[in-house]
Amino acid sequence: MELKKGFAEFIGTFVLVLFGTGTAVVTGGEDVLTIAMAFGLSIIAMAYSIGTISGCHVNPAVTVGMWVNKRIDTKTAGIYIVSQVLGAIVATATLLFILNSAGLETSNLGQNSTATVGVLGAVIIEIILTFVFVTVIMGVTGKKGDGKFAGLAIGFALVLVHLLGIKLTGTSVNPARSLSPAIFAGGDALKDVWVFIAAPLIGGVLAAIFSKQVLDSEE
Amino acid sequence: MELKKGFAEFIGTFVLVLFGTGTAVVTGGEDVLTIAMAFGLSIIAMAYSIGTISGCHVNPAVTVGMWVNKRIDTKTAGIYIVSQVLGAIVATATLLFILNSAGLETSNLGQNSTATVGVLGAVIIEIILTFVFVTVIMGVTGKKGDGKFAGLAIGFALVLVHLLGIKLTGTSVNPARSLSPAIFAGGDALKDVWVFIAAPLIGGVLAAIFSKQVLDSEE
Amino acid sequence: MELKKGFAEFIGTFVLVLFGTGTAVVTGGEDVLTIAMAFGLSIIAMAYSIGTISGCHVNPAVTVGMWVNKRIDTKTAGIYIVSQVLGAIVATATLLFILNSAGLETSNLGQNSTATVGVLGAVIIEIILTFVFVTVIMGVTGKKGDGKFAGLAIGFALVLVHLLGIKLTGTSVNPARSLSPAIFAGGDALKDVWVFIAAPLIGGVLAAIFSKQVLDSEE
Amino acid sequence: MELKKGFAEFIGTFVLVLFGTGTAVVTGGEDVLTIAMAFGLSIIAMAYSIGTISGCHVNPAVTVGMWVNKRIDTKTAGIYIVSQVLGAIVATATLLFILNSAGLETSNLGQNSTATVGVLGAVIIEIILTFVFVTVIMGVTGKKGDGKFAGLAIGFALVLVHLLGIKLTGTSVNPARSLSPAIFAGGDALKDVWVFIAAPLIGGVLAAIFSKQVLDSEE
Repeated sequence: MELKKGFAEFIGTFVLVLFGTGTAVVTGGEDVLTIAMAFGLSIIAMAYSIGTISGCHVNPAVTVGMWVNKRIDTKTAGIYIVSQVLGAIVATATLLFILNSAGLETSNLGQNSTATVGVLGAVIIEIILTFVFVTVIMGVTGKKGDGKFAGLAIGFALVLVHLLGIKLTGTSVNPARSLSPAIFAGGDALKDVWVFIAAPLIGGVLAAIFSKQVLDSEE
Repeated sequence: MELKKGFAEFIGTFVLVLFGTGTAVVTGGEDVLTIAMAFGLSIIAMAYSIGTISGCHVNPAVTVGMWVNKRIDTKTAGIYIVSQVLGAIVATATLLFILNSAGLETSNLGQNSTATVGVLGAVIIEIILTFVFVTVIMGVTGKKGDGKFAGLAIGFALVLVHLLGIKLTGTSVNPARSLSPAIFAGGDALKDVWVFIAAPLIGGVLAAIFSKQVLDSEE
Repeated sequence: MELKKGFAEFIGTFVLVLFGTGTAVVTGGEDVLTIAMAFGLSIIAMAYSIGTISGCHVNPAVTVGMWVNKRIDTKTAGIYIVSQVLGAIVATATLLFILNSAGLETSNLGQNSTATVGVLGAVIIEIILTFVFVTVIMGVTGKKGDGKFAGLAIGFALVLVHLLGIKLTGTSVNPARSLSPAIFAGGDALKDVWVFIAAPLIGGVLAAIFSKQVLDSEE
Repeated sequence: MELKKGFAEFIGTFVLVLFGTGTAVVTGGEDVLTIAMAFGLSIIAMAYSIGTISGCHVNPAVTVGMWVNKRIDTKTAGIYIVSQVLGAIVATATLLFILNSAGLETSNLGQNSTATVGVLGAVIIEIILTFVFVTVIMGVTGKKGDGKFAGLAIGFALVLVHLLGIKLTGTSVNPARSLSPAIFAGGDALKDVWVFIAAPLIGGVLAAIFSKQVLDSEE
């Protein structure tokens, strides 16, 4: 069963990263709404499919938030995170194959960046974006939430955090989504990738605490 | 409990104002659909999360409408409105921090304006926009409504009133959303802010009466 | 009760025509998705509010389709259609006030046109668009449909018929929506308005028959 | 009954192909989100209407996936596929009529192409896109899925696969959707159409197997 869950997380994160960063790259990166929709609709699509097995975390910041609120045990959380990172890596490799097939240049793989707002700005922005995103997840899937609407609510929340964040950091809110393009792109993306690992994790933990204490989301 | 509700309204209004006005500012303010989606999806995200605690008013015009129809008592309404205004102020302060981090100029903080349609035009337009928005809220959360769909219906209604209003007044329909940028921006925005406080409140009250009398929304 | 239903239809059609044609006019008329969303989200907003009283027809072609399938009696249908036409007229008058407030020119009030595709083309296109739109309505609100999702399904269907039709006829699918701008604009719009009254009605009747006979939508 | 199902599939595929390819052609083909929405919202509209009779496959790759997982018998699957192809052909013929009415040139009928990514690239991309699309369908309509949300989840998944694929292959994921424009356009579109028949079928079969084995979607 845990193998199936891990495989589901692998596929889900593969879809999120391939369609999210891929749409950003192949459409030229200027239309914020189009890119934001690609990330958000990936979540809607995966929530109603692989979510039936794994819950569709597809994001280590979500898994850590769930772990903080004891909705997932440590071993399963580890399997999830490894699967997510592997799914993201295969996604970026697939994007590279697509760009090569199309004869497009491959320096832009959808990596996040601190160039626009600086490291401190990026840390704070990513904490806020992830806090909002994971709060929606904890709330709608929590004790008082309406789980049937979770896929839509969470997907639209991911659209939202991209609408604000794309022009600032590119929006991470997901360490796996940031790590993979950084590995392939190297350079500044790799140097700064700790920001897009640490800040989402902090935001996710804060959201878990807020949801439990204020939204009374936990059993 | 009321402290939690107030904190939930604080966070919800913070999200609405930061993501709504922030997206308008950082994306350049020209793409009406993108901005409208940022405001509307903020409501969807907050409805399915902090809405589980507070009902997700995040707007004094909504709270006053609810109070007119006796769905909220006077004291709680007061707590809500104070929390909403504080959330909006922290949101605009955060937006200022982001703009400074990005080295962007800070004269545009998403303030509403009567410059395009004049004071009378703005009053009438904002009354209509808020009447439509709050009627949807009263209807879908009322006796005959389908509460599970409330987040989606209300969020899309907020997208709608922005599609028409952005080019006219910038769309307020929410005194807290307008007051905060006006305080920080000063000048004409502050001089005219009474329009974007009074007209939404009038629209909200009219919607409450219409919903009760015509839609038979109240118990 | 019928007075309330008529008033609800008046408000609903007012919102559809003001926000739909208004968004088309004030945003410049070039962004097809933005305009399509304004029409479609008007239906979502009204379905979950005034729909609780009247069923949210807000369109004579819908009312006639419902009447053909005996879901509404003749007298109520008459009240609906009169209310819809009046709501549309007040909407266009309001749009005129807004345009005058903004100092914009008033020759474009969102009227439909046969100029691009000719009369025969417009008749056929409008029959198809309305057939699709009313088939969704009859299906999702019918015996086998899932009524709770009706507002979303119908609203997105109206977005859809605008995506294809805006560049061709401006998309009517609704005699009330077309009659009102034609009355105010006069000229070719008024001369051709019969197309946008007759074709939607034909499309609506065909959809009612198709839904009953093929989709088995009726009790 | 099977005649009605076939007729429903005919209408559903007609709507998908006419509105999807038609919107791409009449809006100029550059706005990826607008085109993607036209395809996706067609599915939402058809799912909640003709879906009540036929399940709204409107795509041979979906029907074959359903057949692999024994959700449809061989004879009905054959009726579905023939109906889908006929619906697509009537859709393209209707699009031709519309373009002629508007005096537009008719060389672009929304055909898919291998020109950007090559044959191998197109095969791999279409397998991935269809795998994702059909996995969502199998999951949300499967044993553990939430069928009431199927129309929305599947429709948004079709938006998603268009966001990534439009700039690469034009996105097929549907042999009927590709065959019909290729027949009318001829030339390279017809020469390469096997790619857009074979790859979606492979993707659909892989999705059926994945859904059964990993998502445990079957009874």
